[in-house]
Amino acid sequence: MHLSVSLRILGILLMLFSSTLLLPLVIAVLEDDNTITGFLTALSITFISGLACWLPVRNARHELRIRDGFLITSLFWTVLGVFGALPLALTDALNLTPAEAIFESISGLTTTGATVISGLDALPQSILFYRQLLQWLGGIGIIVVAVAVLPMLGIGGMQLYKAETPGPSKDNKLTPRITETAKALFVVYLALTVCCALAYWAAGMSGFDAVCHAFSTVAIGGFSTHDASMGYFESNTILLICSLFMVVSAVNFGLHFTVWRARTAKAYRRDSETRFFLSALLVCIAVTCSYLILTDTLAPTDAVVHGLFQAISISTTTGFTTQDFAGWPGFLPVMLLIFAFMGGCVGSTGGGMKAMRVMLVFKQAVRELKQLIHPHAIIPLKVGKRRVEASVVSAVWSFFAVYMLAFVTIMLALMATGLDFTTSFSAVAASLNNLGPGLGQVAANYSGISELAKAILCFAMLLGRLEVFTLLVLFTPMFWRL
Amino acid sequence: MHLSVSLRILGILLMLFSSTLLLPLVIAVLEDDNTITGFLTALSITFISGLACWLPVRNARHELRIRDGFLITSLFWTVLGVFGALPLALTDALNLTPAEAIFESISGLTTTGATVISGLDALPQSILFYRQLLQWLGGIGIIVVAVAVLPMLGIGGMQLYKAETPGPSKDNKLTPRITETAKALFVVYLALTVCCALAYWAAGMSGFDAVCHAFSTVAIGGFSTHDASMGYFESNTILLICSLFMVVSAVNFGLHFTVWRARTAKAYRRDSETRFFLSALLVCIAVTCSYLILTDTLAPTDAVVHGLFQAISISTTTGFTTQDFAGWPGFLPVMLLIFAFMGGCVGSTGGGMKAMRVMLVFKQAVRELKQLIHPHAIIPLKVGKRRVEASVVSAVWSFFAVYMLAFVTIMLALMATGLDFTTSFSAVAASLNNLGPGLGQVAANYSGISELAKAILCFAMLLGRLEVFTLLVLFTPMFWRL
Ligand SMILES: [K+]
Ligand SMILES: [K+]
Repeated sequence: MHLSVSLRILGILLMLFSSTLLLPLVIAVLEDDNTITGFLTALSITFISGLACWLPVRNARHELRIRDGFLITSLFWTVLGVFGALPLALTDALNLTPAEAIFESISGLTTTGATVISGLDALPQSILFYRQLLQWLGGIGIIVVAVAVLPMLGIGGMQLYKAETPGPSKDNKLTPRITETAKALFVVYLALTVCCALAYWAAGMSGFDAVCHAFSTVAIGGFSTHDASMGYFESNTILLICSLFMVVSAVNFGLHFTVWRARTAKAYRRDSETRFFLSALLVCIAVTCSYLILTDTLAPTDAVVHGLFQAISISTTTGFTTQDFAGWPGFLPVMLLIFAFMGGCVGSTGGGMKAMRVMLVFKQAVRELKQLIHPHAIIPLKVGKRRVEASVVSAVWSFFAVYMLAFVTIMLALMATGLDFTTSFSAVAASLNNLGPGLGQVAANYSGISELAKAILCFAMLLGRLEVFTLLVLFTPMFWRL
Repeated sequence: MHLSVSLRILGILLMLFSSTLLLPLVIAVLEDDNTITGFLTALSITFISGLACWLPVRNARHELRIRDGFLITSLFWTVLGVFGALPLALTDALNLTPAEAIFESISGLTTTGATVISGLDALPQSILFYRQLLQWLGGIGIIVVAVAVLPMLGIGGMQLYKAETPGPSKDNKLTPRITETAKALFVVYLALTVCCALAYWAAGMSGFDAVCHAFSTVAIGGFSTHDASMGYFESNTILLICSLFMVVSAVNFGLHFTVWRARTAKAYRRDSETRFFLSALLVCIAVTCSYLILTDTLAPTDAVVHGLFQAISISTTTGFTTQDFAGWPGFLPVMLLIFAFMGGCVGSTGGGMKAMRVMLVFKQAVRELKQLIHPHAIIPLKVGKRRVEASVVSAVWSFFAVYMLAFVTIMLALMATGLDFTTSFSAVAASLNNLGPGLGQVAANYSGISELAKAILCFAMLLGRLEVFTLLVLFTPMFWRL
């Protein structure tokens, strides 16, 4: 283990992160809203901590190896999650305990979007902007990690994407590849954010709200500057724009980059995962809208617009709301939560187990049915025209099993803190899948649950965002040997 | 497809089944309890139907093939489930709708033990005996199918057991093998039932109750002749005897046969699945008892006895109760339900996904963690000293995924009938795992839910008992081709 290199990178990340605090600080100064001290203090502490990490090891230049990838990726969300809580903890208007501030910060950076804050509309603009910024930074973080780092670590079948990553180098050296890839992906991410903000603004949002919501839309984050979330704007146009950008952001950004470079949308049509994802999404939307109409829950037009919006928002794990969807009749709320277990595509900002994995599980189950009927046939498992290697399949299966095991364990732990079954089930589904809103006591807000429950959910959010295995390997003694 | 052979076997099974009705008929005559006509009518209809199936094809002598195995196994539980409902439907004292009678009958034959009948204590003894008999017959049915048929069909990794089956023949011809194996297993099953009944009787049960409860204990069925289930007897000795026989019945009967023939218990210790199953059970018992003591739910002695009994009863999927375990605090009821997803060992009367599959999933997940840390190492998956073939592993994974998919789909369907989340979740867990009691509205009894919900749960019980795939393949067009 070259801990020195990991420490150097962590130091750089902290210093970079502290510099992003300049943006909300500018707003704080312009609005003069009593948050200036908080942001300045947070910026200084974060920068100095970063410097303290970096200075002693600034000359460490070992090549990064696979094992360092697990550590740095895990540190990115845990350490930045804690430092990101500083501006929130230091703002008196919020009145948060340290645990609550960390919950809110981790929920932002992991693009979960579960909140312990109510009364958003009355908060200083600098704080509101900062929450959205956390999601946006978390979003680009996960894209870069998913496209550039995870395929090399081989998490849950991600080695499938090893050869497809944009950027020149195909070897095992992490540094040049990550830098190249990160740049390309950042440009796509930024372009999408700008388009989204312009569309919101044209549809009637204020400039501030347009930028803030573009941040949390493209990051599939779900934070809003209003308690009523997207319902605040009372505009079907905005809901449709939001729906479009949520779907686009739930597609592999590596694919977006390919399409952008090739100037043709052919790559979308050729990509099995995207096709599978869109088909599942269509089913989810169709069921939601029809059931809302059949049960007379909403008028037909509203049922279509709100059904479409809410189905996309929950199943892509964004978590924006317009209606009290937790109160929708019958199986709808739980069905939407179940779709959130799939979430977005690999290499998107979406949470969940990812469409590629669900697709492979599904294909494998169909293959098994065929195998039972024709026991002597040799039936290969294919994605598109490519045969999937056994190691990829078994990695996907293990991912699926560990995900379920983590879900059940965390749910039982939550119930041990005293929460009821519906609340625990949905809270874990909402945090492990990086979705945000749950059902029961956590339908709107997580402030009502105990500090211990919040800490458990922080762990669930990190576990989900780090694709479970990235964090789990750190808990094995084997990882630290040598 | 040689449908004629399947029809011939179905006819024989129906005639055999009708002959078992002689036993409750004898009780009905002795007690003269107004159920004689019902049993006689049911016996005649079943026998004549069997004869009508068998007569036209009685000379069909084609060798059975793999594909016929799926059909006959599925027919065993569906057709016998329907005919088994006749005595219940024809008894006025029960006042059941046809759907309810079928629910009760399928619940019996699949050894689920969910009931729509209350006021058991006041029912005629012949009917009470018949319900217990249904479970006992279902129990030997599933053992024979699991040990002799499923390994050849290759359901969910059962091909792992192909070479280990007792009986002489190792080829693909089903008939001689099944007959040999069935005889051997029946002897073990009968011996265990006799021991269990004697123990109950010695501990204070009436002769009738001892036999009835031995039937449902060894079958991991959970039906009782009293509304208070095992709680009726108010005897810790009986609870401990019951606990012992539930654990024994949840172990592979093929293994029991081996041990019995070899006159040494070495085979138990050598068997990885048994070791894994017992370890998991110990964890479950330890957590249950400690939590009951820690939360002051019960006095220490009661906490240990009832905790041990209830933990074993639910996690082996027997479903006997003494206490209102659904009202136990915190995570306990849900945790016990989750353990029921594992259930018993392969080739036992227990339900759930089976210890062998959970063990393989667990081993595979640990292997994957090691693989991530040592990406270039070749790490084989072993059970005992044997390396597990890739085809077995992928079959187990598919089983796991299809099981989860079935669970979620049926749960959403139940919610669509108007049931709440806790009730739906636990009702599906209780029927798919062939457990019996659920939580919420179905904690004690299933009579309160709609006819449609009962029909859905019948399907879930059959799906669980037929290891999902046996029934699913029948729904594929591919199966019926040729
Ligand atoms: K989210
Ligand atoms: K049972």
